[in-house]
Amino acid sequence: MPKYHPIEQPIAFKTSHSVGGARERLEVPLPDSYFRAFEKVDRDPNLQLVVAVGGEGAVVGCLQLCVLPGLSSQGASRALIEDVRVASHCRSRGIGEQLVQWAVAEARGKGCKLVELLTHQTRVDAQRFYERLGFARSHVGMTVRF
Amino acid sequence: MPKYHPIEQPIAFKTSHSVGGARERLEVPLPDSYFRAFEKVDRDPNLQLVVAVGGEGAVVGCLQLCVLPGLSSQGASRALIEDVRVASHCRSRGIGEQLVQWAVAEARGKGCKLVELLTHQTRVDAQRFYERLGFARSHVGMTVRF
Repeated sequence: MPKYHPIEQPIAFKTSHSVGGARERLEVPLPDSYFRAFEKVDRDPNLQLVVAVGGEGAVVGCLQLCVLPGLSSQGASRALIEDVRVASHCRSRGIGEQLVQWAVAEARGKGCKLVELLTHQTRVDAQRFYERLGFARSHVGMTVRF
Repeated sequence: MPKYHPIEQPIAFKTSHSVGGARERLEVPLPDSYFRAFEKVDRDPNLQLVVAVGGEGAVVGCLQLCVLPGLSSQGASRALIEDVRVASHCRSRGIGEQLVQWAVAEARGKGCKLVELLTHQTRVDAQRFYERLGFARSHVGMTVRF
């Protein structure tokens, strides 16, 4: 990852660990569009961008948790976990597990009756990881990209 | 569906067409929790509960569209379509198609680069329907329910 200013780190971490690398612009400083998106996430009470910070203060993992009001299940909210990323040199240390378990507990604490997420069909390892954390492969995740 | 007051109709329609019928309480009037959830959806600028209304003014279909800010794809928002329902006596008339196409166009108009949704693994007909509308079966949808 290029050398970003500390306040850019959470954004730069997420961006540089995007699954769709070709869709990102990893410049120093980062393009304004990332900061505008960060502000939108930051001021939305339903959204939380959660980061895991390593011993040296560097961001080593992240996820985004969305709590979505809705009418199903007697008007209970549901949660969506997105963009779970762990730095490649920090894998297999339980960081992803801690992040996801935190998010599930947070969603439950906010009254959600359901937590959902999408993992790419090819990411069989990720699916096993989520199954281990209590998720079921119950749905097909369908997407359209512009 | 029991006889609900007109202003209850969108909520009653959604609720009575829930996939998880046993999780709902279809009473007249509807329990307060539905109205509290409706208010949360209504005042959230990222959420839209969209209904299709038939010739006699009755609600015959609905979906919920969520536009979610995030950092991926240079800070583009993404959209989540949830709770797509069409009254059983109004199927095969293109109502679901109109609702979903409206939602996709709306998401695109709001700058989303990605629209995603989850359909239950057993709903093969629904998956074909979404494929016809341009969605790919790209992901596994994983859920945990409390």
